[in-house]
Amino acid sequence: MKGYKQAILVREDLGMSKGKMIAQACHASLKAYKKADSEDVKSWEDQGEKKVVLEVGADDIKERFQRAKSKGIPAAMVKDAGHTEVDPGTVTAVGVGPAENSKIDSVTGDLKLIK
Amino acid sequence: MKGYKQAILVREDLGMSKGKMIAQACHASLKAYKKADSEDVKSWEDQGEKKVVLEVGADDIKERFQRAKSKGIPAAMVKDAGHTEVDPGTVTAVGVGPAENSKIDSVTGDLKLIK
Repeated sequence: MKGYKQAILVREDLGMSKGKMIAQACHASLKAYKKADSEDVKSWEDQGEKKVVLEVGADDIKERFQRAKSKGIPAAMVKDAGHTEVDPGTVTAVGVGPAENSKIDSVTGDLKLIK
Repeated sequence: MKGYKQAILVREDLGMSKGKMIAQACHASLKAYKKADSEDVKSWEDQGEKKVVLEVGADDIKERFQRAKSKGIPAAMVKDAGHTEVDPGTVTAVGVGPAENSKIDSVTGDLKLIK
């Protein structure tokens, strides 16, 4: 059976509070979910909606988003409005999938889980 | 103009890692989103999808969920499968809304933001 997951990439280097990081991650998760293939979403839901939360650097986050897009994998980038903790337009998080594990891994497989 | 938001209630007392907390919050956010009224979702999206991340205690989390339900406000409870950090069936997070601010506040208005 094919496995499915969603990857949520979050920048830890911005010094965001925990609550802010959570909100940005949820924006990314929902935004990517809306772009995903409906069959993939169904398979993912049937398997329990696995989400992995990964650390990504400032220099890397846009490149990961572009890599997903170039491979046809649904992805969404979150830019913060900058009302509170970060500068306006700062990319804080990226959601990739849900999609097959192998596809997600081709974009994010080398990133580390946020502990 | 009416304001709209989604509240994401997360237990901080479980000692979950940051990544685990983020994943549980994203589960709650998505699950509650799917239950929300479509007109409310549209208004919320038009306003930028405000999400507030709130701290909730072990003794209180189920009561908040029930309070939302009893008021007819869309809400979703996340129980962890317990494969990793917490006991199986532990309620880790609750999503409320999106809905009008006043409705959300009637359930979560006294809870503190997670910093």
